[in-house]
Formats: sequence, C-alpha cells, structure tokens
Amino acid sequence: MAPHPVAELTSPSSWAMVEDKFSPFAKETLAKLIAFIDAEVLPATRIAHAQIPADPETRWKTVVPIIAELKVKAKKLGLWNLFLSKAHYPQFGVPLTNLEYAVMAEILGRSGPMTSEVVNCSAPDTGNMEVLARYGSPEQQKKWLIPLLNGEIRSAFAMTERFVSSSDATNIRTSIRQEGDEIVINGHKWWISGAGDPRTKVHLVMGKSDPNNPNTHTQQSVVIVPADAPGVTVVRPMHVFGYDDAPEGHCEVKYENVRVPLSNLVLGWGKGFEIIQGRLGPGRIHHCMRSIGAAQNALDLMLQRVTDPSRKTFGKYLYEHGSVVAEIAQCRADIEGARLLVLSAANQIDKARAKGALKEIGIAKFVVPAMACRVIDRAIQAFGAEGVSQDQPLAQAYAGLRTLRLADGPDAVHMQQIGQRELRRAPALAKRTAEIKKKERVLMERLGMKAHA
Amino acid sequence: MAPHPVAELTSPSSWAMVEDKFSPFAKETLAKLIAFIDAEVLPATRIAHAQIPADPETRWKTVVPIIAELKVKAKKLGLWNLFLSKAHYPQFGVPLTNLEYAVMAEILGRSGPMTSEVVNCSAPDTGNMEVLARYGSPEQQKKWLIPLLNGEIRSAFAMTERFVSSSDATNIRTSIRQEGDEIVINGHKWWISGAGDPRTKVHLVMGKSDPNNPNTHTQQSVVIVPADAPGVTVVRPMHVFGYDDAPEGHCEVKYENVRVPLSNLVLGWGKGFEIIQGRLGPGRIHHCMRSIGAAQNALDLMLQRVTDPSRKTFGKYLYEHGSVVAEIAQCRADIEGARLLVLSAANQIDKARAKGALKEIGIAKFVVPAMACRVIDRAIQAFGAEGVSQDQPLAQAYAGLRTLRLADGPDAVHMQQIGQRELRRAPALAKRTAEIKKKERVLMERLGMKAHA
Amino acid sequence: MAPHPVAELTSPSSWAMVEDKFSPFAKETLAKLIAFIDAEVLPATRIAHAQIPADPETRWKTVVPIIAELKVKAKKLGLWNLFLSKAHYPQFGVPLTNLEYAVMAEILGRSGPMTSEVVNCSAPDTGNMEVLARYGSPEQQKKWLIPLLNGEIRSAFAMTERFVSSSDATNIRTSIRQEGDEIVINGHKWWISGAGDPRTKVHLVMGKSDPNNPNTHTQQSVVIVPADAPGVTVVRPMHVFGYDDAPEGHCEVKYENVRVPLSNLVLGWGKGFEIIQGRLGPGRIHHCMRSIGAAQNALDLMLQRVTDPSRKTFGKYLYEHGSVVAEIAQCRADIEGARLLVLSAANQIDKARAKGALKEIGIAKFVVPAMACRVIDRAIQAFGAEGVSQDQPLAQAYAGLRTLRLADGPDAVHMQQIGQRELRRAPALAKRTAEIKKKERVLMERLGMKAHA
Amino acid sequence: MAPHPVAELTSPSSWAMVEDKFSPFAKETLAKLIAFIDAEVLPATRIAHAQIPADPETRWKTVVPIIAELKVKAKKLGLWNLFLSKAHYPQFGVPLTNLEYAVMAEILGRSGPMTSEVVNCSAPDTGNMEVLARYGSPEQQKKWLIPLLNGEIRSAFAMTERFVSSSDATNIRTSIRQEGDEIVINGHKWWISGAGDPRTKVHLVMGKSDPNNPNTHTQQSVVIVPADAPGVTVVRPMHVFGYDDAPEGHCEVKYENVRVPLSNLVLGWGKGFEIIQGRLGPGRIHHCMRSIGAAQNALDLMLQRVTDPSRKTFGKYLYEHGSVVAEIAQCRADIEGARLLVLSAANQIDKARAKGALKEIGIAKFVVPAMACRVIDRAIQAFGAEGVSQDQPLAQAYAGLRTLRLADGPDAVHMQQIGQRELRRAPALAKRTAEIKKKERVLMERLGMKAHA
Repeated sequence: MAPHPVAELTSPSSWAMVEDKFSPFAKETLAKLIAFIDAEVLPATRIAHAQIPADPETRWKTVVPIIAELKVKAKKLGLWNLFLSKAHYPQFGVPLTNLEYAVMAEILGRSGPMTSEVVNCSAPDTGNMEVLARYGSPEQQKKWLIPLLNGEIRSAFAMTERFVSSSDATNIRTSIRQEGDEIVINGHKWWISGAGDPRTKVHLVMGKSDPNNPNTHTQQSVVIVPADAPGVTVVRPMHVFGYDDAPEGHCEVKYENVRVPLSNLVLGWGKGFEIIQGRLGPGRIHHCMRSIGAAQNALDLMLQRVTDPSRKTFGKYLYEHGSVVAEIAQCRADIEGARLLVLSAANQIDKARAKGALKEIGIAKFVVPAMACRVIDRAIQAFGAEGVSQDQPLAQAYAGLRTLRLADGPDAVHMQQIGQRELRRAPALAKRTAEIKKKERVLMERLGMKAHA
Repeated sequence: MAPHPVAELTSPSSWAMVEDKFSPFAKETLAKLIAFIDAEVLPATRIAHAQIPADPETRWKTVVPIIAELKVKAKKLGLWNLFLSKAHYPQFGVPLTNLEYAVMAEILGRSGPMTSEVVNCSAPDTGNMEVLARYGSPEQQKKWLIPLLNGEIRSAFAMTERFVSSSDATNIRTSIRQEGDEIVINGHKWWISGAGDPRTKVHLVMGKSDPNNPNTHTQQSVVIVPADAPGVTVVRPMHVFGYDDAPEGHCEVKYENVRVPLSNLVLGWGKGFEIIQGRLGPGRIHHCMRSIGAAQNALDLMLQRVTDPSRKTFGKYLYEHGSVVAEIAQCRADIEGARLLVLSAANQIDKARAKGALKEIGIAKFVVPAMACRVIDRAIQAFGAEGVSQDQPLAQAYAGLRTLRLADGPDAVHMQQIGQRELRRAPALAKRTAEIKKKERVLMERLGMKAHA
Repeated sequence: MAPHPVAELTSPSSWAMVEDKFSPFAKETLAKLIAFIDAEVLPATRIAHAQIPADPETRWKTVVPIIAELKVKAKKLGLWNLFLSKAHYPQFGVPLTNLEYAVMAEILGRSGPMTSEVVNCSAPDTGNMEVLARYGSPEQQKKWLIPLLNGEIRSAFAMTERFVSSSDATNIRTSIRQEGDEIVINGHKWWISGAGDPRTKVHLVMGKSDPNNPNTHTQQSVVIVPADAPGVTVVRPMHVFGYDDAPEGHCEVKYENVRVPLSNLVLGWGKGFEIIQGRLGPGRIHHCMRSIGAAQNALDLMLQRVTDPSRKTFGKYLYEHGSVVAEIAQCRADIEGARLLVLSAANQIDKARAKGALKEIGIAKFVVPAMACRVIDRAIQAFGAEGVSQDQPLAQAYAGLRTLRLADGPDAVHMQQIGQRELRRAPALAKRTAEIKKKERVLMERLGMKAHA
Repeated sequence: MAPHPVAELTSPSSWAMVEDKFSPFAKETLAKLIAFIDAEVLPATRIAHAQIPADPETRWKTVVPIIAELKVKAKKLGLWNLFLSKAHYPQFGVPLTNLEYAVMAEILGRSGPMTSEVVNCSAPDTGNMEVLARYGSPEQQKKWLIPLLNGEIRSAFAMTERFVSSSDATNIRTSIRQEGDEIVINGHKWWISGAGDPRTKVHLVMGKSDPNNPNTHTQQSVVIVPADAPGVTVVRPMHVFGYDDAPEGHCEVKYENVRVPLSNLVLGWGKGFEIIQGRLGPGRIHHCMRSIGAAQNALDLMLQRVTDPSRKTFGKYLYEHGSVVAEIAQCRADIEGARLLVLSAANQIDKARAKGALKEIGIAKFVVPAMACRVIDRAIQAFGAEGVSQDQPLAQAYAGLRTLRLADGPDAVHMQQIGQRELRRAPALAKRTAEIKKKERVLMERLGMKAHA
C-alpha cells in the first residue's frame, strides 16, 4: 500500500503514531487538502500578494480576487470549516476530531497564512465561530454565525487594550454598560486582527460590565458590535516588525459611545471570562500546529537552498560548509519533537476537552512558536540577505511566529502556569519518598545496618 | 476507571497516545513493575551502594547481596528479560513490543541503574543476548545465551579501542585470525562495560579478520571469548567523572594471543559489521528511554527540594525565587517532547524493525541524553552543593548521561547522519517547487500578469 | 571629580579600562556628543520618521528636513567625520583613535540609526570615504571625497549580487572592461544601501575586470559610477523584515552598458579585492560598536518598562515576575562582555591596523550582532505586542541587527576563519606538550616511577 | 621587541588592553611564573597524582612529596603569595595589583589546581590570610598568619552548613557563645575545603553569637579554632561528582562543645558578616580568573586533539568534520569576552576596592564558571570517552567548575543582585526619557505637528 501523502510530506513515524486514530473520512479529506494546496493554492500565493495594492489607502479596501476564487473552489470540494469538530459542535461542525484537524492545520501552516483563509479556517474567525456556535443565541447565530460559516463575511475579536497589560484580564478598562434596552461600549483596543478588512462586519468586544465585582472572573462581558456601528473607529494598523498584514491587519480601534441592542450580549452578563477561556484553548493549539507547518516549510526551503548548485561558494555546496548539516539535523529533531507535543495535546483535547488538556496546550504554547522561530532563523541564515527580504517567505513568517510568543499570553505566563502545575505534584512525591525511606529503614534494621544521618 | 499507574507517574497525555497500542499483558506487567520497584527496589538502593566496599581491591570482587536477592524476586514475578521482544526473537523473547518495553524502560531508568540489572535488562547483557539469540549457533546459545537469560552470568562487549577513534569502525586494530582450528585474538580495548564484574564469564570481541578487504564492511568479525581465557587481562577501570561504577566498571582490557576454538566465531567470517549494526539500534533506544526516566527522576527530586520548607532562604521557598518555576516548566516540556520522540521511535521499530527506524533512533540518540543532561543540571543547581555530592543521585546520573552523548557514536555522528538523510529529500522538494512555479506561470499568463525576474 | 558622562550612561568599569587611553580632545568631544544627542537628536527622532511620507513614490524622493538641520548643527559643533582617524588618514582625518571612536560609535548606536547620519558617520559613506581617502586619485578625491566629507552628497557601494552567493568574491559576475578610454560596466547587484536616496550621487562598483586570472584575488576592480549615469537603474528597494528603510534603502540595481571615463578606475586594474579588504575591517567594528549601543538602548527601554507602575499585572510590577530580573542580569553581562571585545578590537586596530586585528574584528563580528539580537529580543518580550510594533524602536532594531549577521560575510564565514586561525596554534601547543612529557619522563625516572602506557 | 610570553600563551589583544597598567616588576614576575610552570610544575603534575595513595585511609594522611619540593623552589624564586596586594595589605603584601595578579591567576588556572598551591595562592588559604591580615590581632597574626604566609601550615574556612540553605547567612545555625573567658562552638558544617589535609592546623569558623539580634548582619561572629581542638570531628569527605579531592577534600565537620580562648575571636563580636563580605569579593575574582585559565587549557587540549593525525575518522581530521571549527571559534570568543570581564573587574577592584566593584565581580561570578563549563564540555566531546576519564584533566576540571556555579553563592543569587542593581538605573532613565519627550513636544509645536497619542 502506498503511504499516505502526509507521511511523504512530513514524518512517517509521527504519522504512524496517529494513523489508527484517523477515520477514513479524515484520511480522505487530508489527501484532498494536500492535493488542492499543491494544485491550486501554492501557484496562486505570489499572485495574491501582487493583488494587494502598495498604496497605503487602497490596500485596506481590497478583497483579493484570487483568494475569493479559491474559497469557492475549496468550499465546493468540502475543504471547509475543518476546524469545527462535530463532536464538540454537533449542530454546525464537521466530522473531524481535533487530532485529525491538527494534522490538517500543519498542512495549512506549511503553505503560508493564505491557505487557512481559503478553507475558512483562519483566525480570528475560527475562534469567533466557536464562540457563536457554543454560546450564541439562535438569533445571533443566524445573523452572524451562518454568514461566517459560509465565508461571506469576516470578523474581529477585540480584547487587547492599549496602555495596559491585558495579559491580566482584570486590567481591562473597556466599559460595557446597560442603558435602557441598549448596551453602551467605550474602550480603546489594539491588535484587533481583521479589523482592517473590508469584509469584516462584526466585532466581538470584551469589556467590563461589573468592574467592582469582588469575583474578578465575573467582571467581564462580551458583546457583538457591528463593524459599521457609529462610534467604532479603526485608528491605524499596527505593524509587526515592518509588516501591516493588509488587508486584514491588526488594528488600533476605538469604541466611543457605541450603542447596540441588549440582544447583542453573548451568553449573559459577567460571562466574558468564561467565553474567553473556552475560546483560547483550541485556538492556541491551531496556532501551534500551523507553526509546525511553518517550521517544516522553512526547513524544506533551506534544504533546497543548501543543495542549489548555483549557490556554491569556494567550490562547495552550502551544505558542505561548517555546521549546516548539523543544523539541519537539529531542525528536523526540533520539529519532530514539537509536532508530537501538539498531536498529543490535540489528542488530549479529544479525550478530555480543552479544560482537561490545559497542561498539554500550555506546553505547546511556549515550546512550539519558539521552536519555529529558531528553525526559521536558521533557514534565514542559509539564505543570506535574501532570507530577510520580500523574495522569501521567511522573514514574514518569523515576524508572525515571534509575535505568537506574545499573543494569547506571553511565554512567561504559560511557563508560570505549567511550572505551578508541576509544583502541585510535590506533596505526592514527598509522600512516596517518605514511604520508601520508611521501608529502607526497616530493611536496614533487618540487615543490621546503621542508617546514615 | 482508575488511570493506569504509569499515567500517574509520568504524563497522562503521552500515555493516551500509546495506551491503545498496549496489550492487556503489557499493561499488567507494567503495573506489576511499578509496584515492585516502589516496594522492593527503591528501599534497597542505598543499601546496595553500601554493600560495595570502598577498598580498591575488594570492590571489584563483590556480588552485591541485596541485588542478588532482588533478582530472584523479580524473576519469580515474571519481571524478567522484558527487553527481548517475542516478535523479533520468537524462541527466547517475551510477548512485549518495543513500544511496550520503551515505557517500562523509562520506569527502570527513573529508579536508577540498579533496577535494570534486577530485572535482567541491563547493558551490555541485553545487546549480547540479542546478538546470541539472533546470530548464535545452537551450541553458543546453550553455553552462553541460556545462562545470560537466566541471569546466572554476565557479559561484556569489546569494541572500543584505545589510541584510535573507534567511532569509525575501520580504525579498529584488534586482530582476529584463524590458526588451524583455533582463533587467535590480539587487541587493546577500553571502556569495556562489565569487564570488571566477577560474574562476567564471557566477552564478545570485535576485531578485524580481513583488514585489507576493499569492502570496509566485511573486514570485521565477532568472536566469543571466555573471560578467563589465558591472555585476557583487565588492566584497570576507566573512570567517568570520578566514578568507577564498580563492580561492573568500564575497563581497559588487553587480549594477548588469546586462543578460542573456531566454533566461537559468531555468524561467520566478515559478519562483524552486520552484527554491530543489528545490535546498536534497539540498544540506543533502550538507553534513550532510560534517560527519559533519569530526567523525570531529577525533576521529581527538584520539585521536592524547591518545596521543602527547611530550605527556605530570605523567607521564601526556593520555588518562589527568580526563574525556578520557569525552569521547572522547561524541564517538563523538554521531557514530554523527548519522551514522545522515543515512543515514536519504538513504535517505528515495531512497524519496520530497527532498519526502518534509523531516522527516529538517530534523532532520539542525539536529542535525549543531551536533554536529560540539561534537566539534571538544572536539578543540581536547585540542590546547591549537595547536588554534586554522593548524597543525591544527580551528579552520578549526570556523569552517566554525559557519557552517553559519546557512547555508541558521539552526537555529531548521529547529527551528520540525520542531516544527510534530510538532504536526500531535496531533489523531490526541488521538483515540487518547479511544478508549482510552472503552474504559477500559467496562472499569471492567464491573468495577464508579468512574472517577476 | 565628577565621572565622565560616558561612565554614567554605560559602564564605569569598561570606561576605567580605556580612560587613560583617551586624549583630552577625545574626552571633550565625547562629552559634547552625548550632550548634543540628548538635547537635539533624540527629541527629533520621531519627527524625522514622521517627515518621511508613507506614499510609495514620494518617500524615495525625500530629504528629511530635520536631519538636514541637525547636520548643520553637528558640523558647527565639530561633531563630524569622527570615524576617520587622522593617524590612518593624515590628510582628511580627525585626531581620534579607533578606540576613541569606538566609544562614540556606541553612543551613536544607542540613539538609533539617524544619529550616525547627523554626524556624517553613517555607512556606506564611511567606508566609501575611507576608500577614496586611501586609494583615490587627487581628482577623484576632489570630485567625490570632498563633497562626501562635507556631507553634501551621499554614496553607495555596489558589491553584493543577485543570483549568486557573493560572500565568495570569486562568484561576482559584474563585468568591468575597458573600451577605448572608457570603462563599460554590466552587472546586476542588490542590497545596495543608499542607492534609493535622492542625495546619493555616486556608486563605487566592484566587478570583474580579469575574470580568468588564475590569481582569484586580482580578478576584481572597483570603479566610480555617477548615480545618474545612463544605464544605472534602481529596480526596487529590498525589504528587511518588512522595512524598506526609505529614503536610503537597500536597493536592487542594474548596470547596463554603463560607461565612465578611465579615470574613474580606483587604484588600478585588479585592485578590487585589496580595496574591499581594506574597507571591511574598520567598517565591521563600527557596526559592532553601534550594535552595542543598540543593545544598551534596548536594555534601558526594558528597565523602564518593567518598572512602569501602569504595566503591573496581577498586582505586581513586571520585574517581580518570574525570570525578568535574571534576564536583565544576563543582558547586562552580555553587553559588558561584548563591549570589551569591541573596545579590545578597536585598540588592536590602533596598535596594528586592521590587518593586525583580523582575529579581534572577526570575533566581534560574529559575537556582537548575535548578542544584540538576543538582548533586543528579550526587551521585545518585556514589551508584549507593543515591542514588535512601530511604537517602539525594538523590532526595527532587531531587523537591522539580524541582517548584520548576514552582511559583510555571514556569521559562519567569520567563525570558520577564527576557528582556522586557532587551529594554527596547534603545532606549537603539541611541541610544548611534547617538551613537558619529556621532562616528565626524566623526572619519573629520577623518582623511580614507571611511566603509564 | 619580542612579545611578552603571556601574549603568546593567550591573547595579544587582551594583553594590549592591560599592558600599560603593568609595572616592570609585575611583567618580570609574570614571565618568571610562566617559565617556572613549564619547566617544573607541569612535568610534575601526573607524578603528584600518582603520589596520592588510592587507599581510602592513607590518602587523607598524605603530604604529596613533589608538591612540597616545588613549594620550596617557588618560594625561593619569589613566586609566592602573589594574590596579596601590598596596596591593600601594606604589612604583608607583595607589590602587585589585583589586575596584575588576575593575569597570573589565569596562568595558574591554566595548569591545573596544583599550581596555585605550589605558589601559596590556593583557596581557602588565600581568603583566610586576607582575613587575618586585615582583621587579625597581632597575636593571631603571629600564631596563624605568619605560618600560613610561609606555607608551613594550611587552613579551612567553615561557613556552609548541612540541612540548611546557607546562601542565606541568616539560616546559619552554628552557635558561638561566651562562657567565662572561653568561647564555646557547636555546629554542623560541610563542604569545608582543606579540612581533610594533614597540614591543616586551623579553622576559621563562622556562627551565630547573637541569633536574636534584629539586625541580621550583626548576628554572626568568626572564631579561630585549632584543627586539633577537642570536639572537632571530620566526619567524611564530600564528593564532587565522583572526586574526593584528597588530600585537601571538602569535608563534613562537626564542632561539638569546642572551647577556645576569648582571644580567638576575630575582629569582635557581631563582626562575622562584615568579615565574610570582605573575604568573598576578591576570592570570587581569583576563582574566575583561574576558571579562564581552565577554559583556555581545555581549548588548547581540544586543538591538539582535533589536529592529531592518529585520531582521523573516515579519512579526515576531526577538525574537518561538521561543526568542530565553529565550536572552536565559539570557545575562543567565549574565553576572550570572559577574560576581559575578569580583567575589568580586577581593574575596578584596584580603583575602588572590592566594595566598589560589586557589579563587576557579580557579573564575572555568574558568567565565567558557566562559560568555562561550556568550553570544557565541548572539549570533552572532542575527546570522546577519553574526555570523561582519568586520562585527561577535563572531567575533573568540569566537576570543579560546575561546583563553582554553586559555591560562594549560586548563579541565581548573583544574577538577582546584578539584575536588581540594574533596576536601580530605571528612575534616572525614566527622567531622561521624560526630558526628551518634553523637548520633542516643544519641537513638534514649533513645527506645527500634532503629537501622537
């Protein structure tokens, strides 16, 4: 039997660890996805870039034509909304597990950020769809979720705020308060991905509805805000290194006396923190799996560069110099280990939902983007100055991955959480040690030995 | 259902990745092993150390009484020869896969080097039993394999030589030649593990029987040499960071005109390289899995130390200082990733034998011992000076793991091999890139775009 | 006595190592420079950025008004051409040693790339002035060097080529040939810094005038090309992590049948390699010293961020979390060590010219930019997402420093050269060891001891 | 002029940084020291090792004959007590600065721990001599300091305690109390270097004389205790990895109702903390400089190994494989940077005493031993298994250096202190930033620009 295409592309042994956890449908979908990307998406990537105008005004009003075309094709092929597991979202989901999607997400990440959009699996829409599918009212679902699931509109998620450290959610200052049968929103956010896109019709906005509640986990609420509501101002795009990531962008946005009907409240007053928690877990692992793909792509580019005869120096291929081969080996090993961590986390989500996989998600969150940065950085070095330029995808990929070490909680926060979880194992370990010591003493007495101080 | 003890000890999510690949017998054996180690082996560890005399003479003539006792118990419980998979050694093996044993080997490594010996799974006996089981004549098997399988004798494997870099097997100088119906061996080896042990009755000696053969892979042969054959001299024990690892030791050994009957040749003339190759693959993965256990144990000790109230400084627990929690998180992540790499390699051996798992074994070989060294080093730092002393197992564990980065091929050799394997993927990648470029050109023409230079 | 301002800004103990090597003039100039930057340059930095239009066309036609103003002021203060040591360039230089300038270059680097330009010390002009001062004919000096020294024009240096690895100078393909009393240049370069600037009036172009000469070091020549000569086309700016560094830029440039008079040849036919070598040494150390300043600035920003009360999370200052303090200590130590390496290299250039300081320059070249990248990366992490944005100078500084690990020879090339130099010490070491062994044997005999094998 | 021998041995450019700070006497002494070590000490090193018996009893009763001989020779040559700077100890010192000694200490460290002893510059005697020279009464000096200065006796310093984390001095439990005209000492110490040596005649013991004093810095006192006083028991040698470092050793010592006359109190009641602080600063820098030498020696050994024709593998020298040359370059760079840090710290001690050089000493303390460990570890890898054995000095050097990362305060403590010192710079930086911002606003107004939010 021919090996599955994923094994050819990446790692047969990682595939061997999970193959028997894959349904026939998942295997078939995966093969289709791989074929579609090679045949349709990758040949269109540079064209898509060229279709975004350089002009600072018009580039934010653009719907990239070739992406729109590809979306139609992907949807027709059933390569659509693959992230939404039917097991967790029976009404809207596709029959794929998180583990199965994790492998597909790697394939998506391998071919650049555009591919996720083509199959309607790109952030922040994915997380927003999950929120609406899980917590939205039927009315909210009809108005916002269905168009999102159909890829007709896009969306933003507004949490991070300027001037405060919003990795501590209690620092959030945006105010959300009821006035009659309306909700009034005032706040100053930034890094709102997608807010620059002309297709973005809706923002999910998190703010404080009960800022003095002693329970800091019920101070927050989430409200649906139409992108064109009066008082919503997209101030400017934030740059990531020198990239503005138009047309989606990561924008600074002001909400000034924005008014929406009460029915735009999601789930209920004070449910903001709960919604966020539910949203972030799977989102992080999707990012991680795409990061594996990005690292894999960097390594593949590096392999082609160092074996390119036109790049010889001093009569030798680049790979024949110094530590290049060792670096390639290190890249391969780094990717393999990180991939297995992500697959294991995805498997754990399938077994115990995101809540039961916090440890695995947390580890992946601080290991994988940092790993991908290292791999891409090595690849950049192999490419020389071209590596940092617009002629290769490496520098932009690096910028994105580097930012991922800050987004959804910086590395340090996740490391603290994982470290604290480990510390909780200490009492059981101490008890076990005490029991062993006790048996040791009994044994020593039996043997007539004197215990050491 | 209560979780399996292994999940409690180590990592539920790693266990979740492999649990459905475990037979009921394997699960039961694993639980029994865990219980036996806690109840019997760990309480005896310091006693075993105390039973080795300090005197430089007698310490090399000692059979440690408590280990001998424990071996009897382990054998009775069926915790015996777990490394020898029936699938690969139908005549002598136990019904366990490599993957199943890999998890058990971690448990062995977690409790120190002694435990492997107690269950008759310690190097170099394991590799020697594999050689004799696979390549030995019935007579050789009867005389040497059966007593080894029974734990009645121990053995040595003599490959590494003094004065040459024997990681290149063609540098081997030991001469093995036929004289009449005898074989005469002359050579100067060192780092011969087990050669110091009074129970060691047999050496498998590798040397050159056909040094001028242009095929450098058929110059070598392997011969069985009784440890007490005239001409065999154990010169001295080599030290590893000050440790002599008595009574087994890693010894310098001279073979001067040692004569053995022709029937002591293993497999045939010129088969030495083939035998070595077969021997090293699984051996490396066993080492790796034990290394995971050693790292896990170091982390567990560290957790207990940094939460110990009697170790507070400046009014705070050690874990409350600086980067301790982050280091613990890093240790946990390092161990998780490495464990999955080893499990994946073991699974690959089960699927495609060692030959089909060279990549996975090679990656584990250079990743895992280095990872374990890092983890143990961090644990040492948490213990202060006590960490480098005889009162904790950390420094000795470090010395062993550090040496593992040199044994069975230094890290650099494995990295070169893995890197070179990766380079072989380059032509297929270049072909794929060319195809995508071609499609891109077609698409650009269709859209009336000018291709960039 | 009040400490010198440089000691206050950076490191008293580094200053103590070199203070007595500083002339009174140098100390005075340094103090003036520090005061000028604080009073005039730093308050103007964001304004200068704002004066560069976003429009993709006009941004390349801009002379930034405030920089032009500052240049006038700096020149009047004598803060001008500080890089050009009178000791090496008696006719044109200022009375400063390389060591003295090295400290000033750190101060320049500390306040961003603009400051170097303000005091007419920015690459590639510095290296071009050195070339013209050392190798230029009086006519060439009058026409091009004097306006450069006066800051009236800017310049470019065209070496790196597209499609080949030009870190091996023999790969250069640009053709430079004589036709009658003209020189004809054909070539395709990129990463030509300054080529985008409207003030750039001249390119120094390196190419092959004798490509088949068996002596690969005499194949190259350098020619002066007016920027507006027919056949010179600036194709596009190259991006560095999304930055185009307008208006200077790093451009792709084509030279198609460009014709210049014979008198534009620098030094003579076949002298290109010699010119390059002379040009790169001091240039590299200037880059390194500026990099120290960039790292120092990142650390200073980080210190302000982690002590900012408005950035508290979970009730604590950022510096009270996890490993922040340890990271700051590491940054400080990294900077100190690197600074001393650069000072030592500059001192060595003063003692033995660049040729006698190749080792020191080479070490600094691969140590310092990598160090600065690490420090800046840590600072980015402390700033959260803002760290990668246009609101802080960190991401752009990182992009520049990262590129420096590729420019003027990638790290690997310098490491190979330094490593090879070290290897040359081996024979003398082996001889010394042999002599010691010989004395050891004599001593052992005298003491009646048996030598170990 | 021929270069100074130190420049030949190590780094001409480091030497160039400090040469003009060296007196003629210091230069002459340094040259004499280098010559003496090559001619006399290095040929005797293995002999000295062989003169220490393996027998666990007698090895602790040995005065190594060849070391005793060499001490006589060194003293005669004036290579004696070089660490004791006359500037700081006018009565007893030699006319050398700390900077001058720092270079000599590197030379000592380069040739192994024995050389320091030969020239009477080995810890803990050095620190104890400093304590007695600075704080001792004339009577104490006559009785203990003079014999130490003469090299007739050796000494121990008893601070670290078992069962507590004594890096926090307030955890010290040893009790020192007055009874009549006697002092009674009770305590349980370990890691007491030198306590195992038959020549050790005196312990300086730190303990608490006023444990309830609210000023935690005046609770401690230091008392002189004769090594043979009743109640002093050397319990056992502590091992460092597997080394016992006989005959000096690092021992566990009990003080049980030890009685000494009141006149054995050093400096006065409650002066213990002050004494310790004065003792540790220069001691740390001596350790660091010796560590540079140890690293340099490891690199020199590595260079010889990788160029040794008898160590070729696969037809190539070791240095021709993979990343060996790059690693050598990294070692060289690591050593250069660290050496300059230590020289700079020593220079700072000369300028501002140890108290004014806390930052520099602290940085060196956590940078240098870790650096030396890395370099030695790389060298070990180049040597293969021989690198961890008793046939090369590398593993033992590693063990010593690794322990140095824990001794005199673990790395983390020094990093915290340096990091905290840096944080103190934050207010001045914030003030400077505010001033620049203010000027920026003025300038923007003048230019009619709108300030960014």
